[in-house]
Amino acid sequence: MSNQERIDIQEQGPEPVYGAGVWHFATYVDRYATDGYGEPRTILDAIKLAGAVGDLSVLDLNWPFPPGGISTAEVREALAEQNLRAIALTPEFYTGRFAKGGFTNPDPAVRRQAIDLVAASAEVGRELGVDYIKIWPGQDGYDYPFQADYTDLWGKSVDALRELAQSFPDLNFAIEYKPREPRNRMVFSSVARTLLAIQDMGVDNVGVLLDFGHSLYGGETPAEAARMAIARDKLFAIDVNDNFRGWDDDMVVGSVHLLETFEFFFALHDAGWQGVWQLDQFPFREDPVEAARTGIRTMRAFHRALGYLDRSELAAAQAAQDALGAQRIAKRALFRALAESESE
Amino acid sequence: MSNQERIDIQEQGPEPVYGAGVWHFATYVDRYATDGYGEPRTILDAIKLAGAVGDLSVLDLNWPFPPGGISTAEVREALAEQNLRAIALTPEFYTGRFAKGGFTNPDPAVRRQAIDLVAASAEVGRELGVDYIKIWPGQDGYDYPFQADYTDLWGKSVDALRELAQSFPDLNFAIEYKPREPRNRMVFSSVARTLLAIQDMGVDNVGVLLDFGHSLYGGETPAEAARMAIARDKLFAIDVNDNFRGWDDDMVVGSVHLLETFEFFFALHDAGWQGVWQLDQFPFREDPVEAARTGIRTMRAFHRALGYLDRSELAAAQAAQDALGAQRIAKRALFRALAESESE
Amino acid sequence: MSNQERIDIQEQGPEPVYGAGVWHFATYVDRYATDGYGEPRTILDAIKLAGAVGDLSVLDLNWPFPPGGISTAEVREALAEQNLRAIALTPEFYTGRFAKGGFTNPDPAVRRQAIDLVAASAEVGRELGVDYIKIWPGQDGYDYPFQADYTDLWGKSVDALRELAQSFPDLNFAIEYKPREPRNRMVFSSVARTLLAIQDMGVDNVGVLLDFGHSLYGGETPAEAARMAIARDKLFAIDVNDNFRGWDDDMVVGSVHLLETFEFFFALHDAGWQGVWQLDQFPFREDPVEAARTGIRTMRAFHRALGYLDRSELAAAQAAQDALGAQRIAKRALFRALAESESE
Amino acid sequence: MSNQERIDIQEQGPEPVYGAGVWHFATYVDRYATDGYGEPRTILDAIKLAGAVGDLSVLDLNWPFPPGGISTAEVREALAEQNLRAIALTPEFYTGRFAKGGFTNPDPAVRRQAIDLVAASAEVGRELGVDYIKIWPGQDGYDYPFQADYTDLWGKSVDALRELAQSFPDLNFAIEYKPREPRNRMVFSSVARTLLAIQDMGVDNVGVLLDFGHSLYGGETPAEAARMAIARDKLFAIDVNDNFRGWDDDMVVGSVHLLETFEFFFALHDAGWQGVWQLDQFPFREDPVEAARTGIRTMRAFHRALGYLDRSELAAAQAAQDALGAQRIAKRALFRALAESESE
Repeated sequence: MSNQERIDIQEQGPEPVYGAGVWHFATYVDRYATDGYGEPRTILDAIKLAGAVGDLSVLDLNWPFPPGGISTAEVREALAEQNLRAIALTPEFYTGRFAKGGFTNPDPAVRRQAIDLVAASAEVGRELGVDYIKIWPGQDGYDYPFQADYTDLWGKSVDALRELAQSFPDLNFAIEYKPREPRNRMVFSSVARTLLAIQDMGVDNVGVLLDFGHSLYGGETPAEAARMAIARDKLFAIDVNDNFRGWDDDMVVGSVHLLETFEFFFALHDAGWQGVWQLDQFPFREDPVEAARTGIRTMRAFHRALGYLDRSELAAAQAAQDALGAQRIAKRALFRALAESESE
Repeated sequence: MSNQERIDIQEQGPEPVYGAGVWHFATYVDRYATDGYGEPRTILDAIKLAGAVGDLSVLDLNWPFPPGGISTAEVREALAEQNLRAIALTPEFYTGRFAKGGFTNPDPAVRRQAIDLVAASAEVGRELGVDYIKIWPGQDGYDYPFQADYTDLWGKSVDALRELAQSFPDLNFAIEYKPREPRNRMVFSSVARTLLAIQDMGVDNVGVLLDFGHSLYGGETPAEAARMAIARDKLFAIDVNDNFRGWDDDMVVGSVHLLETFEFFFALHDAGWQGVWQLDQFPFREDPVEAARTGIRTMRAFHRALGYLDRSELAAAQAAQDALGAQRIAKRALFRALAESESE
Repeated sequence: MSNQERIDIQEQGPEPVYGAGVWHFATYVDRYATDGYGEPRTILDAIKLAGAVGDLSVLDLNWPFPPGGISTAEVREALAEQNLRAIALTPEFYTGRFAKGGFTNPDPAVRRQAIDLVAASAEVGRELGVDYIKIWPGQDGYDYPFQADYTDLWGKSVDALRELAQSFPDLNFAIEYKPREPRNRMVFSSVARTLLAIQDMGVDNVGVLLDFGHSLYGGETPAEAARMAIARDKLFAIDVNDNFRGWDDDMVVGSVHLLETFEFFFALHDAGWQGVWQLDQFPFREDPVEAARTGIRTMRAFHRALGYLDRSELAAAQAAQDALGAQRIAKRALFRALAESESE
Repeated sequence: MSNQERIDIQEQGPEPVYGAGVWHFATYVDRYATDGYGEPRTILDAIKLAGAVGDLSVLDLNWPFPPGGISTAEVREALAEQNLRAIALTPEFYTGRFAKGGFTNPDPAVRRQAIDLVAASAEVGRELGVDYIKIWPGQDGYDYPFQADYTDLWGKSVDALRELAQSFPDLNFAIEYKPREPRNRMVFSSVARTLLAIQDMGVDNVGVLLDFGHSLYGGETPAEAARMAIARDKLFAIDVNDNFRGWDDDMVVGSVHLLETFEFFFALHDAGWQGVWQLDQFPFREDPVEAARTGIRTMRAFHRALGYLDRSELAAAQAAQDALGAQRIAKRALFRALAESESE
């Protein structure tokens, strides 16, 4: 039997479920284009656009539902219309009033507001039947040398999450770590730090959301980070996108790091991880529906490539740390799938 | 005569003029805190805060004056009340409508809008008697591999600036280069690229605004970049701030890179450069007046340190590329001045 | 009582013990200057130079003693002559034969050689009465996407160290983590990963050696990393140096990041950490004795600055996350001490 | 006519000439594995290995021929036996004696030695009929803030090259710029700086050697840098390899940045650039013949992809700065060629 035949008959398993953060379909501002990259969209508009993609099954939703004043019922209906489900809620405890921190805010009253806001989102999440509450403490960190007492930031972060996890034992909380932005340095900055913090919490329902791009520009190898979280049963969710390794550019999946993104999905698949393959792209200047379709087309090619991958050959090459050999095996599968995908 | 006495009698020259970008006194949004880090301020509010600093003499002003609907007369009056002068205008051709570029916008109509907006700012600049029009083509660049025809971007940038420079031969235009943000890659990304572009323009009234932080996180040595621009008579202006070398953090001057900032001012002074020592800080979460005072206090210490610096010793150490010796000489002057400054 | 008086009466505690890696006094090769930056030196030559510094009390020694063929007795005598003590041994299981890994070598025989070499160094360490065996698995990692099975690398690293720790229960082992170099990616790449690995080992006598420069260019805040290791009672040793935040430049302490290095020593001191303040500089082109003296002079200034630091003011500023306030307090103490130090 | 047919009938032109730096086939040392990654090889050994690759036509040769004592005649014969030609010589004025600089050495005698060594290599180059002398002033730069007088370094670099260029008007000199390593900062650090320096030299026979990896980790877009050098008729040669964007890892071509490397070759081809496609890989732990074959296989796929690329579609997408569209067109061609290449 030839090599080619052997890899043809591999089982790549059922197609994954594809998802996205609903903000993928929003418009954005930054500190320069304060008037926005495009007209504002409500979450209902964004859900409609997500539905137009055609391959998305689930969404992670900002909460309170942007721009405010939108009911859970309206959102539920909008999702139903598009045949979408809410996989997660992302409580926005990183807006202006939390500028100096959410869980770590020096003002106890603001800190309490942050915890309460997450708790309120958890109530809504229950209603919507989400899989997890996404915890991204975007303002929890510091900007200057000497500004912060690191032990204090750590303790406050751990305590807040423990409290939330214990208050909602039926729900999962997934911490999305990120090295920086909007703070110059953030508390949950790497997979290993986040795993240590979760240990300190001493609860079972807190895990990690691994954002490929955060991992990449944080200097990790995303596939390795995924293995580490899975080994501790703490990989609750993933997000994918791409960047130039210096910042969270949130580019379309596979636009720069094809091989490393494929390696990431291989790590998930190889470990039997079953979650959603989820986009966290920010198409500032691109059509969001097209950007999502492009990302999904590439993810679908990764999935197909997993079927072409000769696992025993790869295992042998990796056991010998044969870089050229292992790369060739991975590339053969990947390029075949990508070529098929792009010519369709 | 002792070392100490020798350095005491050095001439450090007259105190420099201190300035700031007026946006130092604004509030900001980013893609997360879309509701803003603090209440919005008009340029008139910001000018008032700038006046409260006490040591600022000049401002670089965004134009159209934020948030719009403010007349030149109102601004002139606000400046006069605070005993401030407009050293420059910064035309905002990097807002939402210019998302895909100002000078390099693929749509000729939008490109023309960008040029016209700068031209209009130049008219206002003439009225206010500014020293230069600051050109920061923030949206001119690209985000993805293969997205752009680099030759085309370059040509459009050069042509637009040549046209403007020829239309306003009595005014100076200072290009503020920056490696990235908001675009993943920008056309005017380094001092050397900018100098080459200025050559291609073939005009005399376009130069460089060197932002210390942009240079630093762009991988340059700012003092070396300054020397290069000065050697070609093209250093029209400078901005200072600080960062962690990975992004344009726009932190307070001297909060991280004391020695390299001092080296930068030494390079300016040593070359006889006479311009304004200008702040471009973004105090997202800090009091802007305090942030400006802190930056100026540190710059004043640099100026004092220039008086303490034993130039002949330093020249000898540098001629031998004696790193330890040169650092010691620079540190002796710098630490003395900083200690005096902080204990005042 | 004035501010000044209050900070004058602070207790900064006894002078720390200063140490260095003996390689500080070696000469180096790299892939270009294959003939070396200077004439080769034996470890006996290097010990003599270390003695000439005058302020060093302890050394971390490469083993087998370079360039080979030097006995423990000879080294002991050389140390005694210079009034120095061996604080640690660094077994060199990162030479050519370990190119594809020490603990993680794909060849079981080579892996065994690595473990045996460390074990042999431990025997010598016992003889010399060292405080710890330094474990720097420089070749344990990978270079290419897809090259390695990360779970396997992790397991082999953990197992090897557990075996060694159990074989030498009377000794301590300190893992020096490093993001990269000589491998493109290394197994023990961050403080948090290393702490997780130590947990997996399930032994008490393995801890962390935190190299300031590794932490810095790895994207950590070294002071924060130190707090994290101390909080788990795992900070066995530290090394200091400096770099430009992109690579392990091993420059002289304080030549770039004065404030962050001071913050690092503050974190150690504030937590009551009592270890040696140790240099890991590589003066490729500088006089090693002068480089060591410069590093120690700066460390001594940090120690003095700790005495000047108004801790209650700082604690209050940090509790408010007042960046400008906290920096000012730290700078006042630091600059005073540095100025005194440099004018001595 | 379908899209597919249209792109099938494109002309991709004749196969390029493939080359390599002969050091690709050497073994290496670094500051840790001082005993080397493998047994030393003479340049004659290395030439034999280069011949074994099968697809190489030309080599760039270190001079004096390593490890010394090898005659030009011996090298000429070794090349002839392998059917190889010397395209360039690389004079090694970056060894130990040049630790503090070649052209910029503070000692005039050492500076003269550097110039003389390059001149001597030029004589040998003439004999061998090379296309250019490669100038890589690896030790010309600085390591510490304040160490160097930048104007002086610049002047000495420019003067030395002008002198050499004028002494050998019949030869070309190609400067290989690099941001850092072995110095922390190097004089010829970017394409734009190098082009400015070449202007200052005022000679016609000095140009740029653009190393893809140097450009990439220097923060440039290599395709854009190539365009800039070509636009000034100064792109004398190129080298390719890959890295993780933080250091000169000299990995095998296409092991990380497939799309950007393809874009680089597209930029060359589109501009009608006719030079050699040359490898500068350092296979520290890999078989050098296999590493070269892998690099060439990928380059051959790039060449084939250029034939598949629909240029008018791409031009239209780029004219609109349509990132998703342009990427899709490029990927369609690239993936098809890569898939064919890997399945051969």
